[in-house]
Amino acid sequence: MSDDEARNLLVIGAPEHDPVAHHLSGFLAPDPVIFVQVSGEKHLAVSTLEYGRAEKQAAVDGLHPFEELEVSKLARELKSGDRAYAAAAAGLLKRLGANAVTVPPHLGVIYADELRARGIEVSPEPQLFAALRRTKTETEVGHIEKAQRAVEAAAAHAVEVLRESDPGEHGVLLHEGAPLTSERLRAEIEIELLRRGCAAAAGTITAGGAQAADPHEPGSGPLRAGEPIILDIFPVDKDSRYYADMTRTVVRGEPGGELERMYAAVLESQTAALDMIRAGVNGRDVHRKASDILHDRGYKTTVHDQEKGRPLTEGFFHGTGHGVGLEIHEAPRISTVDEELKAGDVVTVEPGVYKPGFGGVRIEDLVVVTEDGCRNLTRFPKELRL
Amino acid sequence: MSDDEARNLLVIGAPEHDPVAHHLSGFLAPDPVIFVQVSGEKHLAVSTLEYGRAEKQAAVDGLHPFEELEVSKLARELKSGDRAYAAAAAGLLKRLGANAVTVPPHLGVIYADELRARGIEVSPEPQLFAALRRTKTETEVGHIEKAQRAVEAAAAHAVEVLRESDPGEHGVLLHEGAPLTSERLRAEIEIELLRRGCAAAAGTITAGGAQAADPHEPGSGPLRAGEPIILDIFPVDKDSRYYADMTRTVVRGEPGGELERMYAAVLESQTAALDMIRAGVNGRDVHRKASDILHDRGYKTTVHDQEKGRPLTEGFFHGTGHGVGLEIHEAPRISTVDEELKAGDVVTVEPGVYKPGFGGVRIEDLVVVTEDGCRNLTRFPKELRL
Repeated sequence: MSDDEARNLLVIGAPEHDPVAHHLSGFLAPDPVIFVQVSGEKHLAVSTLEYGRAEKQAAVDGLHPFEELEVSKLARELKSGDRAYAAAAAGLLKRLGANAVTVPPHLGVIYADELRARGIEVSPEPQLFAALRRTKTETEVGHIEKAQRAVEAAAAHAVEVLRESDPGEHGVLLHEGAPLTSERLRAEIEIELLRRGCAAAAGTITAGGAQAADPHEPGSGPLRAGEPIILDIFPVDKDSRYYADMTRTVVRGEPGGELERMYAAVLESQTAALDMIRAGVNGRDVHRKASDILHDRGYKTTVHDQEKGRPLTEGFFHGTGHGVGLEIHEAPRISTVDEELKAGDVVTVEPGVYKPGFGGVRIEDLVVVTEDGCRNLTRFPKELRL
Repeated sequence: MSDDEARNLLVIGAPEHDPVAHHLSGFLAPDPVIFVQVSGEKHLAVSTLEYGRAEKQAAVDGLHPFEELEVSKLARELKSGDRAYAAAAAGLLKRLGANAVTVPPHLGVIYADELRARGIEVSPEPQLFAALRRTKTETEVGHIEKAQRAVEAAAAHAVEVLRESDPGEHGVLLHEGAPLTSERLRAEIEIELLRRGCAAAAGTITAGGAQAADPHEPGSGPLRAGEPIILDIFPVDKDSRYYADMTRTVVRGEPGGELERMYAAVLESQTAALDMIRAGVNGRDVHRKASDILHDRGYKTTVHDQEKGRPLTEGFFHGTGHGVGLEIHEAPRISTVDEELKAGDVVTVEPGVYKPGFGGVRIEDLVVVTEDGCRNLTRFPKELRL
């Protein structure tokens, strides 16, 4: 039994919204479940509605309907469904001989307060639960690769639509006779994702021109020739619930010198970062390397140019990468934070440069960290000009 | 200033995943923000990445970049981004003269512990935040109606596909020469939703035959003539982030007597429930009425037949309805719980009957509660036989 297995764990959450509950129980459901691990033995409590499916799907040692834990009765007594879940969890823990549990940092305070009032010691652990999900098994990497293939099919379709589009008045791209907007291009991408069993749960970015200067802007209105278009596609596979993530920056027509220089700098930065990735390297060092290259090419970065109290809004002002799995953003980060990469981490590598009023460039691949480097799960070409 | 406005409120969460943070700040972002309300004045703290958009979109009195609150420095000191958010929130609260806050019940325990360690009194409130979102404005109802129109367009498309399908071997429905599966029908629905700016964020149910006996089963494999097919469509509008929700049960071909009786009973139950809905009525009474009718028609219900400790898996074993808004399930519930309906509540009315091995029937409309009844937002016909 490992150290982690020796800890008593408690999670209360709806697996569809709580990747921790999903990962630990192996069970996917829209409503809250109670997951408990005591002395390495896993127990799951679910509502009547979930019981049948849980019997088939949950990877646990003990399955308990809420009735057995008297959840409804507790809810009436405590006048709170939330407190009832926590009270039921406290009862189950005591029955299993546990009076202290480690919980995810985001376990609801109402659950923690109720558990503590019932004599259960509750310790939120910022790292443990993230760590449990961080190192991906081959099966998990397979789920992510399946989603990544859907991302690339959707990106290929978007590129095809852009190639079929020609500039009309004011450079606005026309596709099949109508202006090609960010919204239309996004719909084309998302329909392709749907056909491949993926959903753009957290959005899709198809931002053109000045809008591409804001890394979180999804994009709206007509796309134009000669302007950068950022395509950032990060859907979830609807069966496995694993995410994939890729960004490409493209231009229909002539990019112009400034944009070409930005693109070359970001590509160089990304290549250098990808070359550094291996088990044992510190994410902070990878981020510094990516930033150094952009700094050398004349762009501001948070590493070199951050002024205290004032947000940097041009140059490179986000992290170099983040873990991807049952969440689109999970451990580890590749940023200013001291965090060592490990074999089995699945991370993005995505430096970018942004210039307000002009646009931006971001290039993002998804890789699995290995002992001596990384395996790039991304096969899609990096071409600025379409 | 109302009682609620007099309370000091704190929310820490990513608005895209935390409807409370979204609703209170008026700002949508994928990463955590800190929202504080002190003496009726709203303050929002956001990361560098969000600052520009927040300036344009957030409906607050004060906007603070994380740099001003020294979030990065705190994260380094505390070796935890989570603790840093809470420490920054504590600093902001003290600056605004508040040392006690009401928080949502699901505020992460790690935030609560850090705030309490810094002398802030933290009281989770199960009802207040749900109540703040419960009564919908006309604008909000408009968002929900827009999503509901998308639901109905998608349902109409699904019905068309089913009407174009004819039974082949073993009654399997064939559409355009290939077996019509739950997966294909679901994709048809979800593509139609996408075209109308909605995403099936939480899933879509297209379950046929015996699979329709499990209310949460999404459905898989070939659909057949003569068997019930439950279509439960509950997407989110991608702009407004409001949900809509509708269920219809249909049969391609001949339903058979047992299914017709189930359908008639559920429709009668739903009609009676809809007739009762008005401001001031107790949800428990509506649920009892819906259950009584099904009981009278010979079906088991949790109200009449629940055995202690044993989940009911046939008959009517879920609630009659739930609130819909920025979450697909929110306050109020129409169930065994004592909860009075109020004008402005947007709720589903969706009794159902299920028979393991055979299938199920559920009929669901979405209504706005008014002083003297309700306004049904659903226009889609209720026809069993296609």
